[in-house]
Amino acid sequence: MGWNEYFVRKGRPVYLADQSSRARSGFDGSIINAVRGGSVPPAQLPNVLIASHQTAWTIFRFGPTFGQTFADGQFPIEAVDELYKQMIPDLNATLPNPNPTLKNMAALAVKLKGAVLMGHSESGFFPEQAALVDPSGVKGLISIEMGCPELQPAEIATIAKIPTLVMFGDHLSDVQGGPANWNSNYESCNKFVQQVKDKGGDAEMMYLPKMGIKGNSHMLMQDRNSNQLADLILTWIDGHVEKKKAR
Amino acid sequence: MGWNEYFVRKGRPVYLADQSSRARSGFDGSIINAVRGGSVPPAQLPNVLIASHQTAWTIFRFGPTFGQTFADGQFPIEAVDELYKQMIPDLNATLPNPNPTLKNMAALAVKLKGAVLMGHSESGFFPEQAALVDPSGVKGLISIEMGCPELQPAEIATIAKIPTLVMFGDHLSDVQGGPANWNSNYESCNKFVQQVKDKGGDAEMMYLPKMGIKGNSHMLMQDRNSNQLADLILTWIDGHVEKKKAR
Repeated sequence: MGWNEYFVRKGRPVYLADQSSRARSGFDGSIINAVRGGSVPPAQLPNVLIASHQTAWTIFRFGPTFGQTFADGQFPIEAVDELYKQMIPDLNATLPNPNPTLKNMAALAVKLKGAVLMGHSESGFFPEQAALVDPSGVKGLISIEMGCPELQPAEIATIAKIPTLVMFGDHLSDVQGGPANWNSNYESCNKFVQQVKDKGGDAEMMYLPKMGIKGNSHMLMQDRNSNQLADLILTWIDGHVEKKKAR
Repeated sequence: MGWNEYFVRKGRPVYLADQSSRARSGFDGSIINAVRGGSVPPAQLPNVLIASHQTAWTIFRFGPTFGQTFADGQFPIEAVDELYKQMIPDLNATLPNPNPTLKNMAALAVKLKGAVLMGHSESGFFPEQAALVDPSGVKGLISIEMGCPELQPAEIATIAKIPTLVMFGDHLSDVQGGPANWNSNYESCNKFVQQVKDKGGDAEMMYLPKMGIKGNSHMLMQDRNSNQLADLILTWIDGHVEKKKAR
């Protein structure tokens, strides 16, 4: 069961949005036709990010190198072909700046009269970025396994008014090669959490192995213990977002 | 409410699949990067089909021309911007031949130990084409608003073993211009239905205005009377697919 279904079964309304340029959200394909027609040079085509199975294996930390797994790994590697089927080319290079997803997430939160925003990986910091566009509908921020960019003091002050949870899995230093540097991502988010706390905010880093929860991959919502992690998140929401509302 | 939710609420298990190359199904983006890198000429780029709002209006038969509606039109035109948000560029030109969707639909039907396959518009004849790949899991075929290609006699004989429903909405001759010729699509499907019947098959054309149901657009699952049409389909399934099973 995915987290979306699990959360619904726990009585929480869930909206599962595809970010602009990916899947059921639209993208601007006109540049491809313009190059095809000869009016624009090929160098202006978007760089379409296509992760191979081999690359995904280490980026997602299923094991130290392609074909190997960690002894305590939580990802159900026998189902890795099902994950591969979910991988689609990344057309983010066709996006305008700013990314419309941020404004749209903020607007959805307003429309829902308050929502907890959650993001993972490429979309991991979208909740914070959406809150910086318009924090008025954002009741909580949950960011999982991503890099945290440097924010300005005024931006940190905005985030500090919203309960914030960051979560990372295991084996951050244990994969060889690949474009992702999980340690530096983790450190950037530790710094972010500390900055929010220093501004008086309610921010928490859940670094799972430090809590005794071992072996989680980057795709932790698909790991064997995914429901346990979902419960951690629900408990955090109840204690930090709902409690704040009750006060 | 969409038909997927409506059917589930009526107790029918529903699988809503994105066809290969679109939305949450993958596509082969490598050709775009190859052209960008200069190793393949721009003319080999896929022709990305991008329907403008103006084109969609008449193709989907919301009215005779862009900005006008039919007096009895069932599409909730006040929500047309929500429909526009659902439109994504069509990457079908990146597909291999045969289209993997057909084999995959047939395989899903087998995995489910029997399924009614339904398609609409671009995917409207996919159910029949999937059944021609492997009919063993296909309990019924429902095809809505598409063109019916010419089949070989042996193919018609295969289809004739499976209950088949075809549905068309209203105003097939009432739109001006645009790339779709609804009348010729309708006629091609009338011929298909007759050919299946001639082979002893259980095939039915539901041409809605002939049944007294007026004003339906091409997007009839989004029309105001969409639940009425869904009920027609469920009644057809019960009378033709489930009844056949019971015999």
